[in-house]
Parts: sequence; C-alpha cells; structure tokens
Amino acid sequence: MKVAVYGAGNQKLYVDQLNLPEKYGGEAPYGGSRMAIEFAEAGHDVVLAEPAREMLDDAHWKVVEDAGVTVTDSDAEAASEAEMAVLFTPFGKKTFDIAKDITKHLPEGAVIANTCTVSPVVLYYVLERELRRDRQDLGIASMHPAAVPGTPQHGHYVIGGHSSSELDIATDEQISRCVELAESCGKTAYVVPADVSSAVADMGSLVTAVTLSGVLDYYYVGTQIIKAPVEMVEKQILMTLQTIASLVETSGVNGMLKAMNPELLVRSAKSMHLLEEQEELDAAINTLADLDDEVTQWINKGEIRHTDLVAAQALAKELKNLMGGKAAEGTIRRCMRKMFE
Amino acid sequence: MKVAVYGAGNQKLYVDQLNLPEKYGGEAPYGGSRMAIEFAEAGHDVVLAEPAREMLDDAHWKVVEDAGVTVTDSDAEAASEAEMAVLFTPFGKKTFDIAKDITKHLPEGAVIANTCTVSPVVLYYVLERELRRDRQDLGIASMHPAAVPGTPQHGHYVIGGHSSSELDIATDEQISRCVELAESCGKTAYVVPADVSSAVADMGSLVTAVTLSGVLDYYYVGTQIIKAPVEMVEKQILMTLQTIASLVETSGVNGMLKAMNPELLVRSAKSMHLLEEQEELDAAINTLADLDDEVTQWINKGEIRHTDLVAAQALAKELKNLMGGKAAEGTIRRCMRKMFE
Repeated sequence: MKVAVYGAGNQKLYVDQLNLPEKYGGEAPYGGSRMAIEFAEAGHDVVLAEPAREMLDDAHWKVVEDAGVTVTDSDAEAASEAEMAVLFTPFGKKTFDIAKDITKHLPEGAVIANTCTVSPVVLYYVLERELRRDRQDLGIASMHPAAVPGTPQHGHYVIGGHSSSELDIATDEQISRCVELAESCGKTAYVVPADVSSAVADMGSLVTAVTLSGVLDYYYVGTQIIKAPVEMVEKQILMTLQTIASLVETSGVNGMLKAMNPELLVRSAKSMHLLEEQEELDAAINTLADLDDEVTQWINKGEIRHTDLVAAQALAKELKNLMGGKAAEGTIRRCMRKMFE
Repeated sequence: MKVAVYGAGNQKLYVDQLNLPEKYGGEAPYGGSRMAIEFAEAGHDVVLAEPAREMLDDAHWKVVEDAGVTVTDSDAEAASEAEMAVLFTPFGKKTFDIAKDITKHLPEGAVIANTCTVSPVVLYYVLERELRRDRQDLGIASMHPAAVPGTPQHGHYVIGGHSSSELDIATDEQISRCVELAESCGKTAYVVPADVSSAVADMGSLVTAVTLSGVLDYYYVGTQIIKAPVEMVEKQILMTLQTIASLVETSGVNGMLKAMNPELLVRSAKSMHLLEEQEELDAAINTLADLDDEVTQWINKGEIRHTDLVAAQALAKELKNLMGGKAAEGTIRRCMRKMFE
C-alpha cells in the first residue's frame, strides 16, 4: 500500500518533557516517524512529510531513512500517490490547512486518516465543501494509535467506522484499508463509530475509562442490590453525566466542581458503598476527600455560569421536529463542532 | 417549627433487602419515620403522614410515637399547619399527586421539600400551574438526606438553593428555613444549586464521585504533566462525558458500552498512566479488563441507536437564538424533565 504520513512528531516533547523512554520504554523517534517506520517495515511504500527538520535529530532521521521511508518537506509531493494519508500533525488549524491542501493532490479513492489531533467527524466537516464539490471519491477515516507510537503500549489502532449518527464519511472498502494497514504492522484494529473514536482513543480516554467503571459499578449496585428498575438507573446515569458535562461546558472544571461540592459528594457517595469490592468508589472517595489547599482554592474561585440542564438527545430531536431534519442539520453540526474543536 | 413528613419508609426494603443494620449500623425505623423522629427530638412539632400502616411494624410505630411524632393517614391534615412539608414518598406519579394535593392545604409561605425520590426542579415544573395560579407564596426546596436516615452515614442534608439556570423556586428565607431545620438536628446543611442537587445527592452520586475523580486526575495530568492548554483539556472532558451521556440516552448502558468497547478503552487509558499514583485509573482498568462473560454478552447484545453528538449548552443557546428566550423555555423544560423523570 502507498502510504503518506504527515508530521514526524516532536521528540523534545516525547523524550525531554514526557520522558517516554524511562516511563514507558520503546525508543525514539516516537510518533509519526515511528508510524512511518513501522509501515515501511511491514512492506508498504511510505513517504513522511515534515517541513520542520528540527523535530528529529540527525541520528533519528537516519533511523527513519534506513527503514526505507522517503522523507520530504512537500505535503503535495507526499500526497501525489498515497492511497492512505495519515495526519500526525499539530492540533487545530494547521491540521485543517494540510488536509485541505492535500485533497487537491491525492489520487482517486484515497483515505485521509486522522490520528489523535482531530476527530474524524470534525475533519469531515472542515473538508466538507472540498469533498462534496471536488472529491467525492475521498474517504475520511482514522488511524488513531491511542498511545504514542514507539512505546510498547501502542499495540493497536482505533479506526473510525460508520458513525452513530449514520453519517458515512468513508466507504466500507476505505475503512477496511485502514484495518488492513494496521494489521499488517501486527497491531490490533478496533473499529468504533467515527464520532465516538475521540472519546475512547484521545487523552480524555482516562476520563472515559474511570467514568465507565463508575457506571458499571452503579449499574450493578442499582439493579442487583438496590433492585431499582433499569430505566431509573439509566436515567440517573444520564442525569449525572449530562449535569457534569454541561457544567464543564458553561463554567469550566472548577466552576463545575464548585457547583457539585466534592466534600458533600464524598458523604453522599459513601452511602452507595454496598459491596465488599467497589475499588473505583474507594479510589474516588480517597481522591475527593483529600484535595490539597491549592485545589480547594481553585475550586472556590470557580464561577457557576448560567446552565440549562437538558437531555441533549431530547433537545436535538425537538430541534429536528421544529425545523425539519434538513434545516436542523447545520445547527446540530455547529453544536457537534463545539464539542470537538 | 411545624413540620410534616410524608412517607414513613419501607422497612422491608431497608432491613430485609438492603440489610442496613448489619451493613451500615443504626437502627430501624429508617427513612421518613427516622427523619420525623429526629425533627421531633430537636424540638419541632412533627406530623408523619403515612396511609400504609404496614410500612412499619407495631414496635417501630411505638418508637415514632414515643418521640412525640403525631401519626396520621391524612395528607391534608398533616399539611394544614406545616411550615415545612418533606416528601419521603415513592418515586414518580405518587409523589406528584401528594404534592399537588397538599398545595391546597399548606399555610401561607410553606416550603415543600423533596428528598431522594424527585428533583426539586421537576417538582416545581409539575406543580407550576398550581404555584403560579394559586400559591405563589409556596416555595420548593429540598431536604435531601443523601443517605438513608437512621444510618450513621446520614450526617447531612442537601438543600436545593438558587438553580444554575437562575430559576428561583424558593425565597432566601425559605431556603434558610431548610438549613435551620437540618442544623437543629445536628446535621450539616449543604446548599447546592437546585438543579444540581440530584446529581450530588441521589443514588447516582456514586457515578458522579467516580467521574469527578477521573476528571481531577485527567485535569492534573493534562495540564501539569502533558502541559496541554486548559481549554483543550476541558474540551476533552466535555466531549467524553457528553458522548457517554448521549449514548446512554439513546442506546442504554449496554448500547453505550458496545459503542465504546471496554477492551479498547483499557488499552487507551493505560497510556494515560503518567504518575505513580492514579488510584482511580488503576481501579477503572481493573474493572474494565475483568468483565465476566455475562457482562460481555450483555454488552454484545447492546444496540447503538441514532445519536447526534452535540454540546448540550451550545444547542440550548442556538435554540434560544432561533425561537427567542421565552418561546424556547417550554422546549428546554421538556428536555430537562427528560433527564430527571
């Protein structure tokens, strides 16, 4: 497969700041350059586009080239034959600019795949005009490493499949191409809904994992021990998570914490300790009961701003009924981008 | 203070099913009858309204009456002089019926306070017609025990103050009355926004506590270790929690888990272990990595239904701009009730 990787990865961040070699193992170069190396070692034709030579030192560039990767500073050149273009580029506008640019150069039917720096759905919306007008053949998918490439933790890729809103941004064949590329390097390929991939693969997956452990704990205690109806337990889960999310949206993390009062929460949550083993609850209570002075002051400085606590999907449905599905699309899209950008 | 408590509490649930005496300590009667006893012992004039005599056995009824509580099966009679009416009544319609009924009988300026079985904001909306038309003097607040009254864990009350949407459903004096009643029994009174009280005081506080510990962990790792911009870290938190909440809303807990793939999440979240001590993350990874066959099958049977992932507050704002604030109120209200009822 002909593959272009955009962005070699900032080795100063990985090595000096995050101290990956000691903390996680593996060796530099990490990031996009490591992905390129692994693709080349799996037998693919790989070009790595990186205009900022200083991202890697000379020894690391030699490792890249010795693996058979072609290095270029021209995004267009890297795109010209790529069946798969993988963006390991900086967060924000830079990634959008590169993506827009390469839509002009990619061959018929190519896939543009994000990694951790943007959601595939946002990438689709940013490129939508180009894709609909000029390049209906291109697909948007992801090759999200969900760990830093080059660390032993990187044993898999998260691939955005058909989205939960039925928006299709890549064909089955294009999604399969991502799976094939991942598996050819000996990585596990997880296909998840495109719009869910960020929540399970980005840095915030820490929050997702901890939250899900709490959801599972409560679902068990609620339905099996307290024997409350499933609908009631699910409504409580929706309510608590929607409340936290909306307060973070309007008031930031410290405003949310001020509204929720960790001290109170410790007392309330202790009452839900109904089993011998509720490891996540014990850990949560320890954390919330033991906030240091600095954190407490930061919470006290929080400001609770106007928040209309609503069930988001119910509101989206009302909007569609009100405006008609087609007309509501633009609004829903803007509000989706508010979440991801 | 003259206080009416509605609902004595189901002792079969507390003692036989939840096994509170052994698990938590304290002694029966638990629940509304224990609240009534404690209010009476603090020197208040207390009436307990309970039409279902079988909720307590004779020995427990004797404890209630020995404390000086007047017992009645008439809701109207209990209301007739109550400055404070506390609803320890069943979930759902029953509570609304009792609340509607007593608005006809309560004296000038009384407060109707929910406990764990309904949110104060929902109670307000259900009673709104009566309150606006006939009884503008009544206030809606809460005396939420956030633990089963009668257990040693019940050292506090959660009181719904001014809401985060600036909807005022009780006066300052009425909120203070709740605080005074709580403190007169030696309990700590926590005043939180009325619309947030359910999330920090109901059964779901287990989920809230665990989630917040994950948010704090990630906020620290994101801003201090990875040194990502605060806005980006907060956006990730919003995105992950809004995604989970919305998937639960459309697809239930197992549909959500199917979309998010716990196995994948374990792998992603492990990469966010960047400190020695991330107790909640360790616990979460243990839980998610060790799902038993039954749970796995239940997740596999989940169905991912149509979900429009949007930032809820952005959508509420768009709706208000579109319809005008006044006209949007009804829609926002309906979508709030979808979350709480």
